[in-house]
Amino acid sequence: MSGEFEWIEGGNVTSPAGFRAGGVYAGIRTYGDEPRYDVGILVSDQVCAVAGIFTTNAVAGAPVKLDRPRVATGMAQAIVANSGNANVSTGEQGDRDAARMAEVAASHLGIPAEHVLVASTGVIGRVLPMDKLEPAIVAIQPTADGGSIFTRAIMTTDTVPKHHAVRFTVDGRTYHVGGTAKGSGMVHPNMATVFCFVTTDAPCDADWLRTTVREVGDLSINMVDVDMDTSTSDTMLLLANGAAGGTSIAAGHPAAAPLRAAIEAVAIALARDLARDGEGARTLIEVTVIGAASREDARMAARTVTSSPLVKTMVTGRDANLGRVLMAIGRSGARIEERLISVWIGEHCAFERGAPTSVPYATISKAMDAPEVQIRVDLGLGNETATAWGCDLTEDYIKINAEYTT
Amino acid sequence: MSGEFEWIEGGNVTSPAGFRAGGVYAGIRTYGDEPRYDVGILVSDQVCAVAGIFTTNAVAGAPVKLDRPRVATGMAQAIVANSGNANVSTGEQGDRDAARMAEVAASHLGIPAEHVLVASTGVIGRVLPMDKLEPAIVAIQPTADGGSIFTRAIMTTDTVPKHHAVRFTVDGRTYHVGGTAKGSGMVHPNMATVFCFVTTDAPCDADWLRTTVREVGDLSINMVDVDMDTSTSDTMLLLANGAAGGTSIAAGHPAAAPLRAAIEAVAIALARDLARDGEGARTLIEVTVIGAASREDARMAARTVTSSPLVKTMVTGRDANLGRVLMAIGRSGARIEERLISVWIGEHCAFERGAPTSVPYATISKAMDAPEVQIRVDLGLGNETATAWGCDLTEDYIKINAEYTT
Repeated sequence: MSGEFEWIEGGNVTSPAGFRAGGVYAGIRTYGDEPRYDVGILVSDQVCAVAGIFTTNAVAGAPVKLDRPRVATGMAQAIVANSGNANVSTGEQGDRDAARMAEVAASHLGIPAEHVLVASTGVIGRVLPMDKLEPAIVAIQPTADGGSIFTRAIMTTDTVPKHHAVRFTVDGRTYHVGGTAKGSGMVHPNMATVFCFVTTDAPCDADWLRTTVREVGDLSINMVDVDMDTSTSDTMLLLANGAAGGTSIAAGHPAAAPLRAAIEAVAIALARDLARDGEGARTLIEVTVIGAASREDARMAARTVTSSPLVKTMVTGRDANLGRVLMAIGRSGARIEERLISVWIGEHCAFERGAPTSVPYATISKAMDAPEVQIRVDLGLGNETATAWGCDLTEDYIKINAEYTT
Repeated sequence: MSGEFEWIEGGNVTSPAGFRAGGVYAGIRTYGDEPRYDVGILVSDQVCAVAGIFTTNAVAGAPVKLDRPRVATGMAQAIVANSGNANVSTGEQGDRDAARMAEVAASHLGIPAEHVLVASTGVIGRVLPMDKLEPAIVAIQPTADGGSIFTRAIMTTDTVPKHHAVRFTVDGRTYHVGGTAKGSGMVHPNMATVFCFVTTDAPCDADWLRTTVREVGDLSINMVDVDMDTSTSDTMLLLANGAAGGTSIAAGHPAAAPLRAAIEAVAIALARDLARDGEGARTLIEVTVIGAASREDARMAARTVTSSPLVKTMVTGRDANLGRVLMAIGRSGARIEERLISVWIGEHCAFERGAPTSVPYATISKAMDAPEVQIRVDLGLGNETATAWGCDLTEDYIKINAEYTT
């Protein structure tokens, strides 16, 4: 049954039953395209089982510090999120502001404050403009088709909204999984600079959800790199409200495998969206490492290749300078034997067992002239594999980041 | 006495007595400014004590594999080096070509082949054009004032030659230390993509030299970052030929401390040159971390800040978006307590104990509008310090690396 699901066109976090969302423009974000939203609420009609993973950066934002213990209870009902200001490195005022955001949203929604999670993204080191934020939060009217507005409210330098949803049926009961993500710069594994919020109307056991968010995070969000920098605000949350009915899903339940596959598919689709929309990016880079001696080796090698500035600029220039891939594998920390390594670009084997092949430079360069470039590396040492996603590095990345605050 | 030395204007690797160098254009390198040189020889009149450190990349070039055991003997007399082709990932042919380079140079110079070291820098994964290289090597006529030509022969995307020399006198005897380096991209600690060759006419104990090259490397070349990528060819060599006369220098010798200080000064000057000449760079970034709980913490924090793309682009844009510095410290792995961290840009304290200060954005941005930007971070936890060097990240980095091979 695993993997048998249907993609919902335009699907998002309110595709699952019992979730509502909305957003308004508070005036925090001073950039971006129309329509403009910079604060949003996602709320469930009933309390959800929740699980999450957060940034590994030792400097964590006030919202992350607020959410961690709340998520640890396994119960939540709403997320209030804003873009334009990350509420990071803002001292005790920042902690008070994050708590206040949750209180204002809770009071507005008529639910307990401890069931509200907070997420903020944007500039670091500036105190939130609560005078703008509080009236904006209470102006939000969440609706059952508001998921795409919520998605827009969490965008920073993202150029496109990112959301997906799927549905699947087990034993006559239909479940939905929806998700949204934001992230474009300061994106690096563990975690990418990302919000990734996934909803489902399946009823879920909280422990199962906790295991699932970690495993799925490791296969999706944690395999994306834009620029090697780890955000202070990264947050992935998985909310299950049970609106689809039925018995609680845990390991062994007939819906557990399809649900896990659906969550994984939505999270990987979002991860690919994040890489494709990396700041200034024109090309999605998908790196698959096979033949690794261990899973960790495969992951390190795949992530190091996607994060190498010289591999990225090789793709930018459609320049088949493939020694850069070997260089990146060599510095990844993965166990390697140079003479066993083979590298493919798309269908073309560029290196075979550590030495260049006779495939012409022009052929490989031409294969890179596409919106997605596949790099496959066989380490020739074992059976473990991993896939990571990144993007090319262009002049526009520099422009975006040299002019970000102002 | 330590530190009492005099800089020699235009000094280089042939400033120490008994060293000769030269170079010619073999036609390997297909880019760069006039005058053009792409193969060079540095040779001592007598056998030298030698010590070296090499790339930590698991993919190492054929020259590195050739040099490691030769340097381990503690004796060498010449270096033959080329730019334009790194002789990396070239299989067994590459090993044969590196050995052949040494043989041809040795025969030309009339010294044993096992006393010749090889260094190659440039494109990875292409076989060396030995038909061009062999006649070029035998055309080189090393001279006592040829150090600057040797420096030019090892440049790749470097825009300026990098060389320095100092002299100092102990007990009436004058010693010289000269050095040259190359490196502009694929530059990251352990090691930077670098050749760094340091010569001295002081007579040195080989063990002392071995300790010194490691310690000095850790304070200089290993604290430079341009783009996070670790080259497959990095080589730092320290050659001491004893032409200044006197007894062999080891720990306890009256000249040991001044010699160590002179070597360190030359290596740090070269490290700063490398950072300043990073591909596309317009600004040298010097990051000093104080107050760390351990030396390793100080080093990790300093290096992570210099290598962060978002800190680099902050400097590119003269944009006082200083939360990025906290973000980088937070992901460095160093032990931190956010509320103890203070950050200065030049003379201005931008964060004090984890929170933004009232120094205006414009003041800090203006302080960054200089050829060198100093970032000082106090972790507030201990007494350990470290300094690292990097450069800003500009559109020109992308241009250079997207168009490198062709």
